[in-house]
Amino acid sequence: MKVFDENKRNLTMLMDFYELTMANGYFVKGCGNTQVVFDMFYRENPENGGFVVCAGLEQLVEYIQEMHFTQADIDYLRGRAMFDEGFLEYLKNFAFKGTIEAVAEGTIVYPGTPLVTVTAPLIDAQLVETMLLLTINHQSLIATKANRICRAAGKAAIMEFGARRAQGADAAVYGARAAYIGGAGATATTLADEMFGVKAVGTMAHSWVQFFDSEYEAFKAYAEVYPDSCTLLIDTYDILDSGVVNAIRVAKEVLEPMGKRLKGVRIDSGDLAYFSKRLRRILDSAGLTDCSIVVSNSVDEYLINSLNRQGAEIDSYGVGERLITSKSDPVFGGVYKLAAVQQPDGSFSPRIKISENPEKITNPGRKELWRIYDPHTGYGTADLITLAGEAVEDNVPFEFVDPQKPWKQMKFEKFHAEKLHKTIFKDGELVYQLPKLEEIREYVQYQLANTVWEEEQRFENPHLHYVDLSRKLYALKEDLLKKAH
Amino acid sequence: MKVFDENKRNLTMLMDFYELTMANGYFVKGCGNTQVVFDMFYRENPENGGFVVCAGLEQLVEYIQEMHFTQADIDYLRGRAMFDEGFLEYLKNFAFKGTIEAVAEGTIVYPGTPLVTVTAPLIDAQLVETMLLLTINHQSLIATKANRICRAAGKAAIMEFGARRAQGADAAVYGARAAYIGGAGATATTLADEMFGVKAVGTMAHSWVQFFDSEYEAFKAYAEVYPDSCTLLIDTYDILDSGVVNAIRVAKEVLEPMGKRLKGVRIDSGDLAYFSKRLRRILDSAGLTDCSIVVSNSVDEYLINSLNRQGAEIDSYGVGERLITSKSDPVFGGVYKLAAVQQPDGSFSPRIKISENPEKITNPGRKELWRIYDPHTGYGTADLITLAGEAVEDNVPFEFVDPQKPWKQMKFEKFHAEKLHKTIFKDGELVYQLPKLEEIREYVQYQLANTVWEEEQRFENPHLHYVDLSRKLYALKEDLLKKAH
Repeated sequence: MKVFDENKRNLTMLMDFYELTMANGYFVKGCGNTQVVFDMFYRENPENGGFVVCAGLEQLVEYIQEMHFTQADIDYLRGRAMFDEGFLEYLKNFAFKGTIEAVAEGTIVYPGTPLVTVTAPLIDAQLVETMLLLTINHQSLIATKANRICRAAGKAAIMEFGARRAQGADAAVYGARAAYIGGAGATATTLADEMFGVKAVGTMAHSWVQFFDSEYEAFKAYAEVYPDSCTLLIDTYDILDSGVVNAIRVAKEVLEPMGKRLKGVRIDSGDLAYFSKRLRRILDSAGLTDCSIVVSNSVDEYLINSLNRQGAEIDSYGVGERLITSKSDPVFGGVYKLAAVQQPDGSFSPRIKISENPEKITNPGRKELWRIYDPHTGYGTADLITLAGEAVEDNVPFEFVDPQKPWKQMKFEKFHAEKLHKTIFKDGELVYQLPKLEEIREYVQYQLANTVWEEEQRFENPHLHYVDLSRKLYALKEDLLKKAH
Repeated sequence: MKVFDENKRNLTMLMDFYELTMANGYFVKGCGNTQVVFDMFYRENPENGGFVVCAGLEQLVEYIQEMHFTQADIDYLRGRAMFDEGFLEYLKNFAFKGTIEAVAEGTIVYPGTPLVTVTAPLIDAQLVETMLLLTINHQSLIATKANRICRAAGKAAIMEFGARRAQGADAAVYGARAAYIGGAGATATTLADEMFGVKAVGTMAHSWVQFFDSEYEAFKAYAEVYPDSCTLLIDTYDILDSGVVNAIRVAKEVLEPMGKRLKGVRIDSGDLAYFSKRLRRILDSAGLTDCSIVVSNSVDEYLINSLNRQGAEIDSYGVGERLITSKSDPVFGGVYKLAAVQQPDGSFSPRIKISENPEKITNPGRKELWRIYDPHTGYGTADLITLAGEAVEDNVPFEFVDPQKPWKQMKFEKFHAEKLHKTIFKDGELVYQLPKLEEIREYVQYQLANTVWEEEQRFENPHLHYVDLSRKLYALKEDLLKKAH
């Protein structure tokens, strides 16, 4: 099996085997076409943060559109000797026939809210589980991490430099896409530029400096080839005794005679606060006040916050492994749970998942997700989950339950409500115009500037956004819990 | 860009942009064909372990074989307006022309030793950097993590269940492959079975249980469809009051009349030690002593060690996010460094990378990697790095330097030496017969049973394998360091 031999890699088959055993079971039992509702949601913000940047919807759409089983897939399944022939025949012509509602890519989201809701025949809904989770989990993880790093960096630019430490090729490519959504301005991964237009940047590795007979010759050669974009890596031998000295010499002897300026110096090791401050003074004294200081060691939001407190003089960061793997919290735990099953009379019967772990209990039924805004400031004050069909209208008082304090009588009075779900697929047809990547990224910035409280954007003990339930939904949940015991 | 539209996804372009800026610079400066030597190595074992299971070579081979630039790639690069037309023309016909030596996949390896050595024209050697690192880093990370988990689990089986939390599709698929190399016995990822023959397993999700009108009906339906492989998920409502009661009822009322046995029960939540012990007793009292207890919560080697100490009664583990992301240490930091440059006279001039961080200083020159075995026990007692061409012969005393104690006179006397590098590509031609996945997995097991000291396999403060340098290599390194200062 070759990496490139993509005829053999049908991502439809990237599904947990139990989805196929269940689907076959439903087929055999004659209930594969029953309409059901599944919700995808997550339970905790990564790194005790205040929110998540939801991403990955575009790749989910592509996956759904391309779902199909090849003859080779069918033959493989037949070889497992546990699938009904009628089911294998059914898979041959399988195409997803359901309806998908989801928050727009780039939406700031909160724990417990349905990010994606699938209403589909049981088999269809079950077979999309793994890739739906994988795609949304992965890109939301990286978009959120990148956003944290960008918030820490403030005006300093963030470049995503992680491909070599990514967990596979897709992690590098879609990770670069997600990092851009989160706020990174560029990537080192050329393929992400070619595929998505995330600008690829980069100048030289240590090997360039080592290859030439001296550091000065290496810098000179680079400046001659790239006089307009000359950033020099100055830590191959010694940053202060050699690197910056040779960089300044090249700026003066090679670039300035051509009318060009040294664009930047980069360091990849050492004490970043100390060296950046020393370098800033040295460069300024040499008249290179416009020369940027770029840093590319193992940095993340925690280290950047620390560097800021120390007054480090860093203009941009190349962020590698700690971004592309979200190293300090590398798992985004989205789940996909059955919420309702259609009955012969057409109504939907709600389903609940109970658990020894109370935080794993699900919200039952067909639901809608609303964001409630304060009409004066425009800030989002809460998310509200209702049962489908409940009317939520601006400034029409609406009683709700805060699940943390269910005994309190609570009501939204003056508010603006927005339904967060867009219809993406309707009965198998794509009915949604996917936004451009640039629009998704701008939407993130817009929300953070205009609708998300600063206190939710804090790193330490952020304000936790309220996620409230309508009284009807809360009552249904209580009722199902009682019945189960 | 579609996930499936693989004509547009040319993994050749998954390279750091600086590889292209450097390659173009070398081309313009007329030195792109100079032969150079790069070593790939890593600096620290993940999780303070004693070793790494090296994996990913097969995918590196596939990448190298398929390297090519399409017209679309060239057009994209031209659009960046910084590449020489001659260079773009050169890329059109690019194919890798170098020699690659590497340790066999599945080899137990240690920090600082060259896992892959590339001897190639400068441009060729530079352009393979990202994917070489990405592939070996990722699969070595997961193979090593899986091996740790398997060592903790002892006789209990490990199934890799992580796709939904993997960092992208490749992380799921190649992660499943790497986990199998490390010792996992199966995967949930169907595509990994279809592509590599890693057996895919799985039975039901909570949604199966929720879909039916009662837990009993759900279990009964499953048993009727899969009487030969019936493992029931018993924690949807209540493990002891409901789940195990219904499972036993199905074993007695549905399976036993068919002459079949209940294969297993699975729990995915709750206190695993407590419930597994309670379940074992309940199942045994019901005569189901052959019914396995399967656990699939967020487990890893640390939790499994703890469960073992508590006497948990668990027959197999489905290990998800903590394996597929190597959650507790999700980055394998392999690097790729220039070691030598060929001179006009044909000789190779060694190169060193110095650093503010002393552990980042490289071993210069063309080198060879040996494993030194104790001839009596067969255990590997040290790795030895020599300059290329140094003779190391069994039982012929060989003087070396332990870089931790360079003042000590040290010598191997009675020993068996094995050269660890295989030639994979010779001047661009694949000359290596890739082993089967099953052989790679068995090779790991063989080494751990026969050649790797138990003390290196310990989780807490493992014995650190010696990595020694020949006196010639050590002298060369000292010499280059002195010259640089």
